[in-house]
Formats: sequence, C-alpha cells, structure tokens
Amino acid sequence: MTEGLKFELLKTDGGARLGRLHTGRGSVDTPVFMPVGTLGTVKAMTPEELESMGSEIILSNTYHLYLRPGHETIQQMGGLHRFMNWERPILTDSGGFQVFSLAGLRKIRDDGVEFRSHLDGSAHFFTPELAVSIQEALGSDIMMAFDECTPYPASKSDTLKSLKLTTSWAKKCKTVKNTDQALFGIVQGGMFQHLRKQSAEELINIGFDGYAMGGLSVGEPKELMYDIVSVTAPVLPKEQARYLMGVGDLPDMLEAVERGVDMFDCVMPTRNARNGMLFTSRGKVSVKRAEYIQDPNPPDPECSCYTCRKYSLAYLRHLYMSREILSMRLNTIHNLHFYLSFMSSMRTAIGEGRFAAFKRKWLETLLREA
Amino acid sequence: MTEGLKFELLKTDGGARLGRLHTGRGSVDTPVFMPVGTLGTVKAMTPEELESMGSEIILSNTYHLYLRPGHETIQQMGGLHRFMNWERPILTDSGGFQVFSLAGLRKIRDDGVEFRSHLDGSAHFFTPELAVSIQEALGSDIMMAFDECTPYPASKSDTLKSLKLTTSWAKKCKTVKNTDQALFGIVQGGMFQHLRKQSAEELINIGFDGYAMGGLSVGEPKELMYDIVSVTAPVLPKEQARYLMGVGDLPDMLEAVERGVDMFDCVMPTRNARNGMLFTSRGKVSVKRAEYIQDPNPPDPECSCYTCRKYSLAYLRHLYMSREILSMRLNTIHNLHFYLSFMSSMRTAIGEGRFAAFKRKWLETLLREA
Repeated sequence: MTEGLKFELLKTDGGARLGRLHTGRGSVDTPVFMPVGTLGTVKAMTPEELESMGSEIILSNTYHLYLRPGHETIQQMGGLHRFMNWERPILTDSGGFQVFSLAGLRKIRDDGVEFRSHLDGSAHFFTPELAVSIQEALGSDIMMAFDECTPYPASKSDTLKSLKLTTSWAKKCKTVKNTDQALFGIVQGGMFQHLRKQSAEELINIGFDGYAMGGLSVGEPKELMYDIVSVTAPVLPKEQARYLMGVGDLPDMLEAVERGVDMFDCVMPTRNARNGMLFTSRGKVSVKRAEYIQDPNPPDPECSCYTCRKYSLAYLRHLYMSREILSMRLNTIHNLHFYLSFMSSMRTAIGEGRFAAFKRKWLETLLREA
Repeated sequence: MTEGLKFELLKTDGGARLGRLHTGRGSVDTPVFMPVGTLGTVKAMTPEELESMGSEIILSNTYHLYLRPGHETIQQMGGLHRFMNWERPILTDSGGFQVFSLAGLRKIRDDGVEFRSHLDGSAHFFTPELAVSIQEALGSDIMMAFDECTPYPASKSDTLKSLKLTTSWAKKCKTVKNTDQALFGIVQGGMFQHLRKQSAEELINIGFDGYAMGGLSVGEPKELMYDIVSVTAPVLPKEQARYLMGVGDLPDMLEAVERGVDMFDCVMPTRNARNGMLFTSRGKVSVKRAEYIQDPNPPDPECSCYTCRKYSLAYLRHLYMSREILSMRLNTIHNLHFYLSFMSSMRTAIGEGRFAAFKRKWLETLLREA
C-alpha cells in the first residue's frame, strides 16, 4: 500500500458504498465522478470553476500528455498540478486505452506496444515501465497500471492471452514504481466472467492501491457490462477503491454503484455540452431545438448552476447556433454541475439508506427526453 | 439632448480629455476602450469576468444581432442587457459598417441599402429608420445613426455625395427615435479635411448626444487618419463625447486621445488573443513561439491579471498548440485586462497632467516586439 492513499468505507446500502478516498492533496468523497482533462485542461473550464462546482478530483490522459506537450516538459514545469493550476488530486490513466483506440499501426509485443501518434504519425513504443515513468513525471496522485484493453468481441483464447499480458505488465508497473504515488491495477478478461475473476485475483496477488475495471463500455450490450461488474466487484478487496474506467452514462453509474463501484470518469458531460446537449432533472435537452428560440426559461429550473441562474434557453440556443465560445463554457458548467450534484445526491442517498429509491427515481427520469 | 446621457469633461491635458459619461446604467470613465461583443457576447468571456476587469461599457453589433438571433427575439427576451446578462451600458453600432464591409451585393439607394446576408445570402433592406428601430428593440444605452461608410480611396465628388447621404440619414434617425436612448451622429467625409468639417457641422446642426468619427482605419496611412482626427475633433462640441469608431491599436489610441478623442472600440485585443498574440508591458508576445516551450514565466511579469498570476508561457503555449478553449479564455482575459489597465493608467496620467510623458513612454514600448 502507498502511504499517500487510503480508502475509508463509511457505509454500505445494499451493494452501494459510501466512501472517502484520502490523498496527499485532499480527500475525495465516493462514489465520485471525475471530469476528464485530457490535455491538462478540462475543456472550456478553469480549475477554479471546477473547484466551485465541487470537483474533488480530475482525470488526465497519459497518452495525450506524453505526445503533447511531453511529460518531460510538464516535469520541468513542476508537474501537472502546477502546470495546469489544479491543486486537488489527479488520476492519470496509463495510456493503454488510447494506444488501442486512437493510435495507428499498433504492434503488441510481450514487452510493450509499438504505435504511431494520431497527431503526426511518428513512431513510439510504450512499455509498462514507460507508462509508470511518464505518470511519475506528471506527478499524478493516482497512477494506472499499463494494460491491454481487450477488444470487443474477442475469443476466449485471445482474451486469456490478453489478460495474461495485462497481469505481467501490471507486475512490471508495480516493480518499477519509484514514488509514493498510488498505483491502481486494471482488471481485464473481456466478457468472460471466470476470466474477469482470474484477472482480479492475479492483480490482488500482486497488490495495488485500488482496482479498476477496464475493457468495458467498448461496444458490448449494457446488460453484459452490468453482469461483468456484478461478478468482478465482489472479488475485489472491500477496503480499497473500485473504479469503472470510461463509464459515465448516468444510468450506467447507478447500476455500477449498486454493484459496488466507487469511481467513474467519462467525457460525456463535457463533450455533450460542447455539442449542445444538456443533462437536466427532466432528462436531456438539446439547446439547438427551434422551440427554444424565444424560451426565457433556464435549461433546468431546479438547477442552481451559474448557467441556469443567469441565462435563458433562448440565449444558449443563440450562442450555440453562432458557435460562440461562451456556448461551450456555459453548457459545460451546467453539465458538470449536474453530474457533480447528481453524485452528491447519490452519496447522501447512500448515507441515508435510500439508494434503491434514488436509483429508481432517476432511472425513470433519465429514460425520458425533455 | 437625451436625459439618459450626460458627458462630464473633468480635465484636459494638452488635447487629451479626462471625462465621465453618465448613463442610466452607470458611469463610464473616459478615455474608454469598449470591448466588442459582436453577437451579444464578448467572445470567450462572461459578463462577470468583464466587470471584474473593469469594463464599464461594451459594444455590440446591430447588423449581426439583426441577422442572428434577430432583434425581435432579443426584445421578446427583455432586451440585450437581460438576454446577455450584462447590466452595464451597451453601445450599439448602426450596422452601417458591416453592411458595407461584410454583406454581399450591396445597392445603395437614397432611402437605404439593399444587401444580402453574409450568412445565408438572404436579401435585406436597411434604412435609417430600421437601424434605429433595431437598436431600440435591443435597448442599447447609446445608439449610432445609420451612415454610409465612405470607402478608401474615394474621389472628392463621391465622398461629398456619400457625406450628404449620411447627413440625410442622420436626420431621419433623429426624427424617428422614439426612446430616451442616446443617439450619436457619425462624421464622414473621407480623407478630405474640409468635407470632414462640413459633415461635422451638418450633424451638429441636427444635434446629437455625442459624435463619432467613422470611415477611418479603413486602409489609409496612419498619418492621414491622425490628420483627419486633428481637424475633426476641434469642430465637435467640447461638452460631448467623441468616439473614434473601430480604432483600438494602442499607438492609434494614444494619438487620438492627444487629439481629443474619448471613446474607442476594436476587436484587436479579443481577436488577437484567440490567435495567440498577447499585448504586454514589454510589447507583443506570440505564445506559440518555440522559445516558450519550457518557459515558467507569465506572459507579462508586471501584469496582475488572472492569466499572468496563475499560468506560465509554457502552459499557454501548450493550450494554444492544442487548440484548447481555455487558451482563448486565458489569452482574452490577459489582453482585455491589459487594454483596460492601459486606459486606466492613461486616465490617471491625464488627471495628473502627464499625458505627454505617458504617451512617449508607451510609444517606445509598443514599437518593440517582446
């Protein structure tokens, strides 16, 4: 265990867990949604805005920062926190997912992955050792072990082979780790329940500061994802944080929390905001719709965010149609505020032993379109 | 004179004037630079950010708002101030400049201008009456009379004809005006000193709440512009505000203030910010330059803006190269802060009778590139 990180399980309500992640840069209440700051900025936001919305931790992407501006540059500038003016915890992914989803001409070897940059086609070679070294240069609070993100669908034998590679890389990551930054292992195993269990057990044997589930939300049916979470979570140590990577659809988070997951990240609230799609207490709102041309109401009358307090749907539609930067700002503020408030209400519900009712109410709302 | 507007001339220092424009929505210290909010938003900024930087008035564009979202929509939403969440004064231009610079297939008639929208090619007909009616719907604090922006170069006879049209349109604007919003006349007359004087005198005979100089900074040599300002300003009433439209180059503002101008607007600080060009106390800084890759310093060590207090050139370069929205935000904050501080220092210098020294010092700095 790393001294810098401690997970405190405060309460359970059915499968749902209320917890607190203690880091050297402050604590994080769980279940938590982590806004994504791919390139050292949560798109359209300042760190102060994120803080004022109650964001206690953000995620940043190792692959992207390695390519641009380069981890050495960030290290020279005093680390990622200082570079981007964010003093709270940062979780960095390992680069694995991006190497497998974004990069070109991948060649997987036992010792790592050859790939070409999606930016300029330049050749690179990622290893578990390099992934840790980059994350150490960035100085994140939670690092992720380098994994092979098993594609969907994949045969059992391919999945097993991939799982074995992930385990061996995870071991290397732990061995070379040289700082007191926390390190999480990533459970793979595709859509095979026994392989998921096997992967989890192999990682637990190595021993990490927390455990993530990877290779989900990669195109499989929702029910399959929920099943995999259902069988994986119980295998993981109760006293450590569980992170479902790349998942941030609201119903998915409700289902996953019910199955014992503590941490989430997703570009959905920020990306959808830039595309004019808002999450509200009445369901999704597309600000570009003609019916809003002269609508004086805020997107969500129940929302207390800056956007809803100060602006009308008519104005938000106008900004969106005019491709104004303020459109992306105001929409992002609303969506992140909505997500963070949603998680906060969820934590309250777990604390008060009424998570099941909370989940039921929200699933009904979320299936409607406003 | 409109009851809502009063110009108070506090002090002169050579030709430079220290003044205060009193409006129903608060006072504006002059000389003033007005940030441009073309479509009902100063690009990349919130109104609260503008206020915190000391912006006392902004400009918005009649032509653009007429096309998108339409002045009736803004009127329905309670006027431009409420629509965009800006409570301080707004000056709207008349649309004249945009009709002549942006729109297509213009046909000038005695009663107005036929043109096609630069957005979708749709046909429109702008008249002095419509320009006032639109600005009344927007509810700006200062409206501009509809003018013909004389192109450069133009013959004396064409310029005279254009001037006459501007005078007749100005008269119509004043006649149809139906609210207590202030109305400024726009002096034309091309590059002919006696025609500028003639235009000014004709407008003064009609009587406006303030006077602008239009048709300058349209491609003519700088010295020619300064000469035109030199001969026009003294003709204008001392006790009313003088506005040099579309000018916001820092040396130009120094020269114009010395010649008795009080008000300026320009897209330069905001547009250049989005293009990575910063104004600093050491001259211009292009954030994309490779020498800043690992530069831990702020763009301007003497600047107290949010950007300079919190971020390095290295980070600003990274954001710019990555085309991040935060790049445009941070650069705009800096440039507007710089402009507004520059004007504030200029006012202090005039108040203390040392404008000449202020101008000399800045002209030396501004001719350098950092």
